Amino acid sequence: MLNNVRLENLVTILGEHDIDGYFMGANYDLKFLTGINPFPDERFKGLLVLKDGRKLFISPELYYEDFRKSLGEDMPIYVWSDGDGVNPTFAKIKDDYSLEGVKIAIDDSIRGIDLLDMMAIIRSEFINESSISKELRIIKDEEEVKHLQDAALIADKTYGEILKFIKPGVTEKEISDKLKELLMTLGGEGLSFEPIVASGPNSSMPHYSGNQRVISEQDLIILDYGCVYKGYCSDTSRTVFVGEPTKEQRKVYEIVLRANMKAEEAAREGVTAEKLDQIARGVINDAGYGQYFINRTGHGIGIEVHEHPFIKEGNTDVLKTGMAFSIEPGIYIPGKFGMRVEDIVVIEGNGAKILNKSSKKLMIV
Amino acid sequence: MLNNVRLENLVTILGEHDIDGYFMGANYDLKFLTGINPFPDERFKGLLVLKDGRKLFISPELYYEDFRKSLGEDMPIYVWSDGDGVNPTFAKIKDDYSLEGVKIAIDDSIRGIDLLDMMAIIRSEFINESSISKELRIIKDEEEVKHLQDAALIADKTYGEILKFIKPGVTEKEISDKLKELLMTLGGEGLSFEPIVASGPNSSMPHYSGNQRVISEQDLIILDYGCVYKGYCSDTSRTVFVGEPTKEQRKVYEIVLRANMKAEEAAREGVTAEKLDQIARGVINDAGYGQYFINRTGHGIGIEVHEHPFIKEGNTDVLKTGMAFSIEPGIYIPGKFGMRVEDIVVIEGNGAKILNKSSKKLMIV
Repeated sequence: MLNNVRLENLVTILGEHDIDGYFMGANYDLKFLTGINPFPDERFKGLLVLKDGRKLFISPELYYEDFRKSLGEDMPIYVWSDGDGVNPTFAKIKDDYSLEGVKIAIDDSIRGIDLLDMMAIIRSEFINESSISKELRIIKDEEEVKHLQDAALIADKTYGEILKFIKPGVTEKEISDKLKELLMTLGGEGLSFEPIVASGPNSSMPHYSGNQRVISEQDLIILDYGCVYKGYCSDTSRTVFVGEPTKEQRKVYEIVLRANMKAEEAAREGVTAEKLDQIARGVINDAGYGQYFINRTGHGIGIEVHEHPFIKEGNTDVLKTGMAFSIEPGIYIPGKFGMRVEDIVVIEGNGAKILNKSSKKLMIV
Repeated sequence: MLNNVRLENLVTILGEHDIDGYFMGANYDLKFLTGINPFPDERFKGLLVLKDGRKLFISPELYYEDFRKSLGEDMPIYVWSDGDGVNPTFAKIKDDYSLEGVKIAIDDSIRGIDLLDMMAIIRSEFINESSISKELRIIKDEEEVKHLQDAALIADKTYGEILKFIKPGVTEKEISDKLKELLMTLGGEGLSFEPIVASGPNSSMPHYSGNQRVISEQDLIILDYGCVYKGYCSDTSRTVFVGEPTKEQRKVYEIVLRANMKAEEAAREGVTAEKLDQIARGVINDAGYGQYFINRTGHGIGIEVHEHPFIKEGNTDVLKTGMAFSIEPGIYIPGKFGMRVEDIVVIEGNGAKILNKSSKKLMIV
């Protein structure tokens, strides 16, 4: 279904940037504006929104019925067949909408070879302007925050259940499979990413993707997982201990948790993304573990699991009410162990709402 | 590992087309030339091969170690960091290889937004020339044919086993899961696509993707499946009957099988792809079912499950020794039933080798 508020917002953004049109392929911006989540095959499909508010859709014949249903009767849909290819349609929309000599931004899902055809026919200036997508989606409205909250709560319930499952002898893969099962049976409509279950020395690799290791008596495990609910993602990490942690592990856990909480307390309107990163980093630096905090402090989240704003060095984005992102400082000591604690937060005026409610106290199973 | 024979072939193709370079992103042509099968994230990575035989690779910092291992010490690799972005690297290769004012073809995996950056910096003519990829991969050498044969035999063994599993009461999904399990345990290293199990009235949809129906006493089922073996795909279909088929079903099966066999007998050097399509279509037309043969007769196969040559109306490609493709005529009667029989064949001089050995006799389980 078309979201007219969002479409109007896009038109405003185009006006502010003085860009005549925004051409979206089969990707998240299209989904955000229309609810369409098309299979990304090689057949060109896309939505063009113009600065003056007009819009049109290009559809392969094969998908017309589906798209018409999603877009409603008022949307002009230009249909092309496998026999003719899409190029005659580019020529047709150029004429119908006087597209020659204008400035059109494209999203990141339009293929280079399609762009070449488009440029040869439409003869306009095509530009790479990623700030359009960013401005369109970076502030979440109430309903979006609600979906993010619901998705986060499914992940939190999953944490409560997975703790009962973890014991010496199970493999990382078994824990990962169980996480997936829980996320789905507790209400998720999909995974926002393949869960990460990194135990023992594997935990020092932030994006560890193996899964064969067997959990032992004295172990620690990073669990990182999330689901999709009503199109919105959750993403949370906890580090849990099997048996009593060592003294060093206790110390490192306290540092990571302090970094997480300091950043969550500091998150509010007016702070920059890089400042928030510095706050988390400062805690870990001061404790002498700075060299082991090798990733950014967080990433935005919404219909995509990684989106704007990125909480990292050099990002001067100023935080505003409605921005949603992860806070996930970590310490990763190669060959030894790693830990992180991750919540999703949403800026609300002079503070931030923490969407994840799972306990962050050091957990021994 | 670099495949120098294939790289030399690409250089020859570039010479014949008078194209100065071919820029490939993270896709099948890159895999074909180098064995690299990179995760398609948003970071630009690509191989540029020039008409004079020089080549260079662009890699994000994160993946450099992996790529160096695959490409060997002699390949120039230009590394870029998340902080700098890839654009300074485009400027560097423009200078190092005098790329200004030349003609560069791009493959279908280079994104439009990256192409815009590239065009602004390199200031050459970029073109969409899909025949490069086609000419590079359409003729399979002996080793490739061997892999296709081995992949086909795994699919054939799977057919023998799945027949024992099919009975009234099992669901389409259970059959599909069993097919996947068999393909993998019998030697496949992956699936070439999600199996299609279309039973009863569902069989009239060639790309049916549901899976909930329960097989009944008097049923027919299209099974369409394949695996990847040493990087090469198999893809075969058989239609099987649960209990005695009706008289009409027997008749239609004989027509489909005859179309399949006529086309397989006619496949040889010198015949065009469209002619082969006409031969299969002729059998079905003559029997009065032409309106129900709604797809092309076949598609090429190799490292990609659908590639050149496409056996369809309007394709004047002349078949040559080493071309591998499916022959899969079918009859699909909406609301009633559908059937197809599909083998992979490879052109060998004055005939074609049929890679699939599974029986095509009407099978009642």
